[in-house]
Amino acid sequence: MVFSVIRDKWQPIIKQLEAVLGKKGVIKRKEELLTYECDGLPQYRQRPALVTLPKTTEEVSAIARICHENDIPWIARGAGTGLSGGALPVEDCVLIVTARMREVLEVDYENQRIVVQPGIINNWVTQTVSGAGFYYAPDPSSQIICSIGGNVAENSGGVHCLKYGTTTNHVLGLTIVTPEGDIVKIGGKVPETPGYDLTGLFVGSEGTLGIATEITLKILKTPDSICVVLADFNSIEEAGNAVAEIIRSGIIPAGMEMMDNFSINAVEDIVATQCYPRDAQAILLVELDGLEVEVTNYKEKVGEICLRCGARNITSAKDAPTRLKLWKGRKAAFAAMGKISPNYFVQDGVVPRSQLASVLSEISALGEQYGYRIANVFHAGDGNLHPLILYNQAEEGSFEKVEELGGEILKLCVRVGGSISGEHGIGSDKKCYMADMFTEADLETMQYVRSAFNPKGLANPEKIFPTPRTCGEAANAKKAEFKNIQAF
Amino acid sequence: MVFSVIRDKWQPIIKQLEAVLGKKGVIKRKEELLTYECDGLPQYRQRPALVTLPKTTEEVSAIARICHENDIPWIARGAGTGLSGGALPVEDCVLIVTARMREVLEVDYENQRIVVQPGIINNWVTQTVSGAGFYYAPDPSSQIICSIGGNVAENSGGVHCLKYGTTTNHVLGLTIVTPEGDIVKIGGKVPETPGYDLTGLFVGSEGTLGIATEITLKILKTPDSICVVLADFNSIEEAGNAVAEIIRSGIIPAGMEMMDNFSINAVEDIVATQCYPRDAQAILLVELDGLEVEVTNYKEKVGEICLRCGARNITSAKDAPTRLKLWKGRKAAFAAMGKISPNYFVQDGVVPRSQLASVLSEISALGEQYGYRIANVFHAGDGNLHPLILYNQAEEGSFEKVEELGGEILKLCVRVGGSISGEHGIGSDKKCYMADMFTEADLETMQYVRSAFNPKGLANPEKIFPTPRTCGEAANAKKAEFKNIQAF
Repeated sequence: MVFSVIRDKWQPIIKQLEAVLGKKGVIKRKEELLTYECDGLPQYRQRPALVTLPKTTEEVSAIARICHENDIPWIARGAGTGLSGGALPVEDCVLIVTARMREVLEVDYENQRIVVQPGIINNWVTQTVSGAGFYYAPDPSSQIICSIGGNVAENSGGVHCLKYGTTTNHVLGLTIVTPEGDIVKIGGKVPETPGYDLTGLFVGSEGTLGIATEITLKILKTPDSICVVLADFNSIEEAGNAVAEIIRSGIIPAGMEMMDNFSINAVEDIVATQCYPRDAQAILLVELDGLEVEVTNYKEKVGEICLRCGARNITSAKDAPTRLKLWKGRKAAFAAMGKISPNYFVQDGVVPRSQLASVLSEISALGEQYGYRIANVFHAGDGNLHPLILYNQAEEGSFEKVEELGGEILKLCVRVGGSISGEHGIGSDKKCYMADMFTEADLETMQYVRSAFNPKGLANPEKIFPTPRTCGEAANAKKAEFKNIQAF
Repeated sequence: MVFSVIRDKWQPIIKQLEAVLGKKGVIKRKEELLTYECDGLPQYRQRPALVTLPKTTEEVSAIARICHENDIPWIARGAGTGLSGGALPVEDCVLIVTARMREVLEVDYENQRIVVQPGIINNWVTQTVSGAGFYYAPDPSSQIICSIGGNVAENSGGVHCLKYGTTTNHVLGLTIVTPEGDIVKIGGKVPETPGYDLTGLFVGSEGTLGIATEITLKILKTPDSICVVLADFNSIEEAGNAVAEIIRSGIIPAGMEMMDNFSINAVEDIVATQCYPRDAQAILLVELDGLEVEVTNYKEKVGEICLRCGARNITSAKDAPTRLKLWKGRKAAFAAMGKISPNYFVQDGVVPRSQLASVLSEISALGEQYGYRIANVFHAGDGNLHPLILYNQAEEGSFEKVEELGGEILKLCVRVGGSISGEHGIGSDKKCYMADMFTEADLETMQYVRSAFNPKGLANPEKIFPTPRTCGEAANAKKAEFKNIQAF
């Protein structure tokens, strides 16, 4: 009866948690726990010991305190859509799931603020305020299912980040529960608050510094007018030049997305937009927003620049149905890959805009070398690449090979002065590559900060930072030996 | 010979520092040290033991290491223009002055980045890149004399922060020297880097986490067209409403400044702009930038909104000389106060935009209560107030009274949901008010972060955080007793 012995160890913990959350607030049955074994990176799995479903900041604080007192690791989880395994459980851990924390706590149109609980879905924020003429700008592809709490943890981006920035630019204040269970308010409702910018530090810390339980977001005025311009090109280079020239002209589009020939055809095969020419080597989708007169003017300028850079055709749309039609293929791109290939692996890296064309051609060469096809659909304006590596997991050892190829792509991004993550985070998936981007002193400084918040290392252990256990490289072993730091 | 005994204690330190910096790199003569007794807050003074003038990151690192090994507090100082006493020396400290660190290290127009040393003057960044059609957006009033390193320490703002954000939105990466002398690179050249956002944490940390020695800044395309709209009103309320209505309309002006009747008359007395009507209770200066067509359209909209809110006259200017004429009074406002009053004290607080009119009337009532005239010249769009309290320091006890009045204004800002600093920082001047804005747990969390970087507390001690020594309040005494923290 090994199982019951293990469970018995948890009985006093379950009792304490149920005293706070009620019986319905604690999930303990093996089959119900299965759902929580992984997030949007299904290649890694681990069952948690327990799942908790708090409703309030105070309940979250009580859970964290119970874990702290009993030395139990805990992991915050929103909607579980993260792509880097940031919410992947560790052995014998408690999950704090925010699915029952979905209240809008306050809306202040005058000062353009909304206060929400972390479990609220990204898209609901815009739905809540759109009647009054406002919206919430960060729009990850998963926006109809991902949670704001998860967006805060990963500093999520999206198509509109080119003009409006990532989540960090839209979070003004947070109530957080620290790994020791303390409730701390950071930031506020005005844009600048004194002391350290802990809000900026917390956003993107991937659950390793605590959990946000109340989030004050900036809401923006819905633009008067929106226009989408679609341009198709004979080469990636031409499209890349058009991106650089548009930015150089002083126009900052709301979004600027590129798709390569392979993605175009995959999308046309599956959703048949009939907007993207199958023989184009690249298409560019440029969204412009602002006042009517401004958008009209920008639209003309963008069209001129694209033609000057070699575009074959320019289409544009201002009315919502046609705009959605032009966007349809881009929005369906990941799903299309899922249909034309048994499996795909999305990478997320950033390169300086000036390096776009050369990096894409190197990625293509790497794909050939490893024997995999790579589709490119990405936020061109920010240089945020999303190469999709197509493969078949049923083939022995294929995922390991794909991971290696993904790693080569990240190293390439770092080599040209870019970054190993644009918007998906490091999580479990990319921690091995942190040492390619940061020196020992850099990582040590981050670990000091982590320890300041998370001295026992109980909040989301084994994430972000390289550890010998997972990287298996001697070079990394050293990096985990931080003086005075209880690294996990 | 007490003096020589004290100096003798410094002889081995001087020797070590001169070995790194040469004789000219270390200032030790009493009369030369006088210059460094205070920054832009002259009411507090303290002579440093030594001043060092490094030229490179490595030299800064060597100085920090010498201080660390000998337990000597050190303070980074840029141009010394800070208004909150952030660069105020403490007893027996070493200053690290960046006056010889004024190199532009790299300019990358393609990716819109510039890398500079910290001693470079804010305005020089724009001068360096303006020929190629770029500029650096944050523009504190002191921009022709303040240093970029100081801007990073204080997260400086300026007129254009309404549209473009404060310094933190324009710093992409930093090389820092930690209080232990380590050289650490944080952030990078692309907008998003993984791991903790230490760049965001460092900007605005007022020299307490280390010193930035290389700074990567974003540069922006010079706008096609700029227009300034001047509107005058019969009441502050009307002008306040116009500010709210302009923002509500979806227009984000580059800047939106307000001056009250008292400031208008002070300015007209001194610089005679002849643009600001002396009988107006408030004027609004709205700067619009962007494409020609956009600016023209915005200008009309802003004019219409102001008239609808009760403006008496609207003037506007697109050509540079007329624009400068409209701005002249605003730019000269602080200097004008210096001429009409023996002394003045600038406060810096933030209120939610919706509270502007009511807070201004409360400030005026507080002024009457204390018997001082208060001029209001401020960044209305951000709700960032700069009340100028006019007084005569020669009158016994006047500065203490003015400080108390300034404190009341800050408490009022906090009461309405605002902040005790918009852009000048906390420094030495405002640390007593931190407890009005933050709870014990909030401040404790910041102290933990400070300790992570600055375990001995040697980098800029006695700044930001309240200490019983300066606040003298029993309530604050408790807050300094942080467990495991070596607070100063």
